Amino acid sequence: MARWEPGARERLVVAAVDLFTEQGYDDTTVVQIAERAGVTKSTFFRHFADKREVLAAGQETLSRLLAEGIAEAAADASPLEAVALGLKRACGAMGQLNRDIGPRLKAAIAASAELQERAALKSVSMAAAITAALVARGVPEPMGQLAGELGVLAFKRGYARWSDAGHASADDMVRYTLAALDELREASAALG
Amino acid sequence: MARWEPGARERLVVAAVDLFTEQGYDDTTVVQIAERAGVTKSTFFRHFADKREVLAAGQETLSRLLAEGIAEAAADASPLEAVALGLKRACGAMGQLNRDIGPRLKAAIAASAELQERAALKSVSMAAAITAALVARGVPEPMGQLAGELGVLAFKRGYARWSDAGHASADDMVRYTLAALDELREASAALG
Repeated sequence: MARWEPGARERLVVAAVDLFTEQGYDDTTVVQIAERAGVTKSTFFRHFADKREVLAAGQETLSRLLAEGIAEAAADASPLEAVALGLKRACGAMGQLNRDIGPRLKAAIAASAELQERAALKSVSMAAAITAALVARGVPEPMGQLAGELGVLAFKRGYARWSDAGHASADDMVRYTLAALDELREASAALG
Repeated sequence: MARWEPGARERLVVAAVDLFTEQGYDDTTVVQIAERAGVTKSTFFRHFADKREVLAAGQETLSRLLAEGIAEAAADASPLEAVALGLKRACGAMGQLNRDIGPRLKAAIAASAELQERAALKSVSMAAAITAALVARGVPEPMGQLAGELGVLAFKRGYARWSDAGHASADDMVRYTLAALDELREASAALG
């Protein structure tokens, strides 16, 4: 197996999450993150606007992949079938690094109100991307919004299971997330 | 009809939302908000930790009322019937002031990334309050999460309709929100 060679961006994400966990988000500076990652401060700023934005790394890529997968669904696919294709595309792009930082990311977010806000905005952005892609297919707005929330819940449940698992391959992120979507679909039928 | 006598907290909310809309969130200071509201800076800080927290005014009350309404539902009520009771309780506590500031609040949020984050966290908190109240009734977690998202979507759609309407009474907030919940329930049956 080829040795994994992380680039500057990946090293910055790992360094930031480590420092947030070790010493707290508020006490971590951009200079410290850059030092730990072995890059200059200006390299940090080529990748991120500030330390909080490190948490949102990948948000735009995720939203774009979700939208692409949904757009490519067959014309007669149901909203949830289209969402499943979007999730498959987005989750399929996640690698071992995404899984490895899960527990530390979770701890850092739990300890910082500011990171909780950023995480909340990330969820809202993903839901909005799903909704917009569905509405573009002619799905009525309330249904598109609901499917957007379902997609984000499935993603979060899949990610939690994937990053908490003792052993898991990159492919398992897709499998866990689609299983979570099925579970939520069944739950929605029993809401009353 | 008795003259409406807003207290300091209400005046601070109106002043903040007006200033955010007129001159932008970033350029508005706590001193300006206090001056416009006709109170001292220390009065501001008795009510809010900072200018951003003005946006979250009422968040804890809303979450508490949602949870109370859900807890009081009959033991055999479905998850969505319980959510409807929570929404009825929370929306019933909203008054003309909440409706009046709607359009300006929307404009201020649209113009500020920081306010968008705070608004996202407010949605996440409301959904979590609904989910926790349902899980306490024995609803399985995925179903509780889904019902939490449905409740928040219904609240937002009801609020948008209420605050955009040319004429509406305080009672209409409950009516619009329960109608939105019904609409979302129907949409969920057709997700596929």
